[in-house]
Amino acid sequence: MINMTFSAEVAAARASGQAIVALESTIITHGMPYPQNVEVAAQVEDDIRAAGAVPATMAVIDGVLHIGLEADQLQALGQAKNVAKISRADMPACIATGGTGATTVAATMIAARLAGISVFATGGIGGVHKGAETSFDISADLMELAQTPVTVVAAGAKAILDIPKTLEVLETQGVPVIAYGQDSIPAFWSATSDLAAPLRMDSAAEIARAHATRQAMELPGGQLIANPIPAGDQIAAEDLAPVLAQAQSEADAQGVAGKAVTPFLLQRIFELTEGRSLTANIALVRNNARLAAEIAKELVNLKQ
Amino acid sequence: MINMTFSAEVAAARASGQAIVALESTIITHGMPYPQNVEVAAQVEDDIRAAGAVPATMAVIDGVLHIGLEADQLQALGQAKNVAKISRADMPACIATGGTGATTVAATMIAARLAGISVFATGGIGGVHKGAETSFDISADLMELAQTPVTVVAAGAKAILDIPKTLEVLETQGVPVIAYGQDSIPAFWSATSDLAAPLRMDSAAEIARAHATRQAMELPGGQLIANPIPAGDQIAAEDLAPVLAQAQSEADAQGVAGKAVTPFLLQRIFELTEGRSLTANIALVRNNARLAAEIAKELVNLKQ
Amino acid sequence: MINMTFSAEVAAARASGQAIVALESTIITHGMPYPQNVEVAAQVEDDIRAAGAVPATMAVIDGVLHIGLEADQLQALGQAKNVAKISRADMPACIATGGTGATTVAATMIAARLAGISVFATGGIGGVHKGAETSFDISADLMELAQTPVTVVAAGAKAILDIPKTLEVLETQGVPVIAYGQDSIPAFWSATSDLAAPLRMDSAAEIARAHATRQAMELPGGQLIANPIPAGDQIAAEDLAPVLAQAQSEADAQGVAGKAVTPFLLQRIFELTEGRSLTANIALVRNNARLAAEIAKELVNLKQ
Ligand SMILES: [Mn+2]
Ligand SMILES: [Mn+2]
Ligand SMILES: [Mn+2]
Repeated sequence: MINMTFSAEVAAARASGQAIVALESTIITHGMPYPQNVEVAAQVEDDIRAAGAVPATMAVIDGVLHIGLEADQLQALGQAKNVAKISRADMPACIATGGTGATTVAATMIAARLAGISVFATGGIGGVHKGAETSFDISADLMELAQTPVTVVAAGAKAILDIPKTLEVLETQGVPVIAYGQDSIPAFWSATSDLAAPLRMDSAAEIARAHATRQAMELPGGQLIANPIPAGDQIAAEDLAPVLAQAQSEADAQGVAGKAVTPFLLQRIFELTEGRSLTANIALVRNNARLAAEIAKELVNLKQ
Repeated sequence: MINMTFSAEVAAARASGQAIVALESTIITHGMPYPQNVEVAAQVEDDIRAAGAVPATMAVIDGVLHIGLEADQLQALGQAKNVAKISRADMPACIATGGTGATTVAATMIAARLAGISVFATGGIGGVHKGAETSFDISADLMELAQTPVTVVAAGAKAILDIPKTLEVLETQGVPVIAYGQDSIPAFWSATSDLAAPLRMDSAAEIARAHATRQAMELPGGQLIANPIPAGDQIAAEDLAPVLAQAQSEADAQGVAGKAVTPFLLQRIFELTEGRSLTANIALVRNNARLAAEIAKELVNLKQ
Repeated sequence: MINMTFSAEVAAARASGQAIVALESTIITHGMPYPQNVEVAAQVEDDIRAAGAVPATMAVIDGVLHIGLEADQLQALGQAKNVAKISRADMPACIATGGTGATTVAATMIAARLAGISVFATGGIGGVHKGAETSFDISADLMELAQTPVTVVAAGAKAILDIPKTLEVLETQGVPVIAYGQDSIPAFWSATSDLAAPLRMDSAAEIARAHATRQAMELPGGQLIANPIPAGDQIAAEDLAPVLAQAQSEADAQGVAGKAVTPFLLQRIFELTEGRSLTANIALVRNNARLAAEIAKELVNLKQ
């Protein structure tokens, strides 16, 4: 086994069989500037505690996989420069070379599995990038959902992606995409979309039973819970569409390509919405954390 | 383990180590109208019995996975309305929520694996849809073949699909595609095509040995046996080509898209061939059932 | 377990816990004419021995999987006609039917895993073929790297492939691509390219630790070590580009398609470079064998 350490809170929760919710750390290192990143991360952790579960923010620090960060570690990670963003491909190398890395959705799922944690809350998953029919640019998050038994609560895939193609890949890979409480797929900043959800569930208990059934059938993958942003916090799809279009056309016009596209788009959307995209992002992550805590508690109940 | 129940016949076969052949149930719920669907399903089951093996038609009924259906259950399923078509992504959810679902190729393979059944007969597998280079619409059946150790006997992929691309994906995923008794890939309603088969085998015993070797090598997936429709029952490739082209161009002209395409095409092909497509479909499923029974018996022999 | 036999040298190395390096055999049967193929294969084996490890050239001969070939077996394989090139899909069928086959990258990885060998040296891996956005022609080598725990030392993907798309698929599948000692991805005959490597390592010990960490994390796949051809042996990228372009445009003009493309291109590149492509190919394989031996020895050290 690799060098893995647990926060005091997570260690206690494991000992007592309490519900635990995994959290990623790229939102801290790559999602917002300091100190807002640490404040939001701490807020999301508190949301999970308030809902009766224990947060486990994942990160690799100096080659050690951390399952849960102490407050000072969170502070340090929030101020660290040039932290790697690690996915399945580079996570073992980061650990083997004593590096420091923030976990993407894929890496957080791997960490959760190693720690025996079944539920993970994030903002939005990666997916099929626009133009993937010629670039082949598809996030490793999708393959991770196909093979790692973690239920991921997200507000759908990030809205700058090609959502119809992302749903097709998830279907091909046998990943359940379950809209929570509605019939359409939520679209990250927008609560609804015109895409029908493959599955719909209306309670955390139902989601937990589906998770447990998947395990009982020895199917290797996880579930994607597509949890709509609260209506009061959303940017409605009709308001967002022209913003997405403008940001994308600027990226095209300026020849932004490859890994530079996503940060460029997110920054322009932030500017064009006058900051509402970030406010909405925080609201949806907190909302996902609360639902994830409920699912994690139901899974504990199921085991009893 | 999940709630799983065996028909009396399958339970007895398991106890005595008799050969068993899995059958799917979407052909019952989505392939033909009642009562023809039940008659054909019963006929195919009898073909397997006549060949010395035991049929195990798979379905999820009220949240219970059925491995083999009793006659009254088959009747009820054949008349049920709005039964879900379940694949890998939605099968656990269907079971967890107490639903009823008919099994696609992927779901039938999963059920077979859970029940320790190694051979499965169907009509045609799903594959890469025409236009998938931009739609990304690829059946989960292909990934299931890559990971679940079941030998699937089919008359190739459904002819309305993009067969060359389907073969490429199967090669990439390491799935053996074995033409039975000929050098070309059969094309569902047509016995032959101008596509060379990657592999050819001429006996059930050879196929059974290849299956057993795959298991012995700890390779996770199955095999696709591409079994040509009997010559007397086929619609020759040159007769079928204009029918496929017309049906496809009508779909394009009428803007039929997404999940509506396959049922539209099948209905138009049925009409344009004056019902011969359905007659051929029944003949090829029965033919596949007989070969599957032979392979299953050879596998029993190998274990002894 | 299947019928598997070890060369005397490999059997002794296994007994004493010595470092072993796997080698493929399609380079023997499909890469060069006799007797050059056997001379090069023997030379590469000697390079591994000189570096302190033991070579295990893989092949299926008359249905038996050989882990290491005796000198007379290598001679016979080098002169055999119509030997199959076997990958994941056809390897079990070849064994089950008593056939003879040379192992591709994918099949060699499978053989290595069965024999408990962790490191494999080859020339270049297969990948995404040019035009794959419409042909879907993608080598099974990429999926093998995603699921089989072998570190593969190659000079990158074969340069006639679409390298950017190959890197995207490897990222999606979670495969580490580690450039050895430089920041750019080597391009087979050329030491460098304008593509940044996802990861870089500068020592065999570091690569071995990353391999071991991957295993400790129970991640199923391997690693691709992209090892640049020695500078003195390379064909510089700027010299190679017009050659690749000319060969490709001739293939297009003559309508060469499907599986005929790769041999056509390699032959034309051989002619257009007046044989330098073959000289470079031999140099890079030997270079990869030496690095693979170092990594294998470091892995032995790690286990102690
Ligand atoms: Mn990408
Ligand atoms: Mn589909
Ligand atoms: Mn290919």
